[in-house]
Amino acid sequence: MTRQQLFQLIQKKRSFLCIGLDTDINKIPPHLQKLDDPVFEFNKQIIDHTHEYAIAYKPNIAFYECRGTVGWRSLEKTIEYLKKFDVFTIADAKRGDIGNTSKMYAKAFLENMDFDSVTVAPYMGIDSVNPFLEYDNKWVILLALTSNKGAIDFQFTKSESSSKRLFEEVLLKSSSWGHPNNMMYVVGATQAEMLLDIRKIVPDHFLLVPGVGAQGGSLEAVTTYGLNKLCGLIVNSSRGIIFASNKEDFGIQARNKANELQQQMESILLLNRLI
Amino acid sequence: MTRQQLFQLIQKKRSFLCIGLDTDINKIPPHLQKLDDPVFEFNKQIIDHTHEYAIAYKPNIAFYECRGTVGWRSLEKTIEYLKKFDVFTIADAKRGDIGNTSKMYAKAFLENMDFDSVTVAPYMGIDSVNPFLEYDNKWVILLALTSNKGAIDFQFTKSESSSKRLFEEVLLKSSSWGHPNNMMYVVGATQAEMLLDIRKIVPDHFLLVPGVGAQGGSLEAVTTYGLNKLCGLIVNSSRGIIFASNKEDFGIQARNKANELQQQMESILLLNRLI
Repeated sequence: MTRQQLFQLIQKKRSFLCIGLDTDINKIPPHLQKLDDPVFEFNKQIIDHTHEYAIAYKPNIAFYECRGTVGWRSLEKTIEYLKKFDVFTIADAKRGDIGNTSKMYAKAFLENMDFDSVTVAPYMGIDSVNPFLEYDNKWVILLALTSNKGAIDFQFTKSESSSKRLFEEVLLKSSSWGHPNNMMYVVGATQAEMLLDIRKIVPDHFLLVPGVGAQGGSLEAVTTYGLNKLCGLIVNSSRGIIFASNKEDFGIQARNKANELQQQMESILLLNRLI
Repeated sequence: MTRQQLFQLIQKKRSFLCIGLDTDINKIPPHLQKLDDPVFEFNKQIIDHTHEYAIAYKPNIAFYECRGTVGWRSLEKTIEYLKKFDVFTIADAKRGDIGNTSKMYAKAFLENMDFDSVTVAPYMGIDSVNPFLEYDNKWVILLALTSNKGAIDFQFTKSESSSKRLFEEVLLKSSSWGHPNNMMYVVGATQAEMLLDIRKIVPDHFLLVPGVGAQGGSLEAVTTYGLNKLCGLIVNSSRGIIFASNKEDFGIQARNKANELQQQMESILLLNRLI
């Protein structure tokens, strides 16, 4: 999917909502547990009920990997199912290794499973990221500023030579490895005011913003500082939507939550003349 | 496995060699390709031929993940097989995510597959690492200074407040999250002279040193600067051993290469009165 196509999708659905498929088997409704593949069945119903309001889906790979081959199969079925819909797909894998090894991870997510994008960790530098950039119309979503409390440990360390914080160094340097048509950045919503500084460095890139909802981020703050002329934001919500209910009505409750967020996003898009 | 047990293993085998099971299906001998699970069969024969000389095995997860459920099954069979031997096992996964998600990765590698250790990326800070530290006698091996060319991009950035380079900040800060009995660090052999600085910060920790062989690092330089009183080094070689031949004699050739390295290591251990 190109950047222009992504923006068109946002305009069509009047939404920039991403739904995080962090499908913890211990949290899904009991009535699904007796099925052959409860995780896939849960995802399928979540997707069926919410795809009208969401432009993207983001399975976090940890929740599948922790179930071994069984989990991996649920993941493969989920991405296969997502392809029936007009949505952008994100493998939230946070991978990164030396060049010839990153190539294998790129193959796993962008080729074999054919995700549109994959999240990548920046610590190992250029050759750990480049193999993910070799696919046409696919995307690297590089970690810049994360939404967890440990973000403070290294991401805010200021460089002696540039006085930039590490997450700014990551944005500055990596933005020359790719371009706004094949790179995005993870920027936690709990750090919304930082978006002002971030937009000075990467005005055109899309930002994937986790942490709205369960992690405490505000949609208003994020959009005030983060929107650009192609919207430029994909805002993720996971637990707040997918675990809105753990009863038989979980699909309907997830749909309601997604609809609520989509409505807020529609107002914001209108207000900013993006639709 | 405790630190003391690891040192005893090193003394018993007169070796601190780790063999990287970076089993690329395209590089394994043609006569194995017709088997049901060529990757596992290859690993099994490599392990059978080399376990006498190696104290550790390190499958790099990318090479398994890029084959989906089939690859994941090969990995599960490999770790199951490794348990028959007196060796330390490392899941080279370079994972890391927000707390509740890292917990899932920890479960995948340290609980379900029961690896002794897992490599973890530091970018997201304390809560991305802590869940891996909650298992008794298991280890986090945190990336500090990697052996690839991209290491220069961020790992050498000096902090304005401390004048320490990022990899030193990682060592300093993270060494208080765990202790030398549950944390190790990845330090690339291509940066051997840096081991002098690293040993000032973490004198007691074990270091996992990749990059000897194919990536150009020297065993002599690494041990000159890196040894401590419990050896403190696990030196990895992957391609140089496992792909020493791609004919039917690949096991024997791998054994020869492993034996060669073990002999060099034995001399070094003797010279340093560690055996």
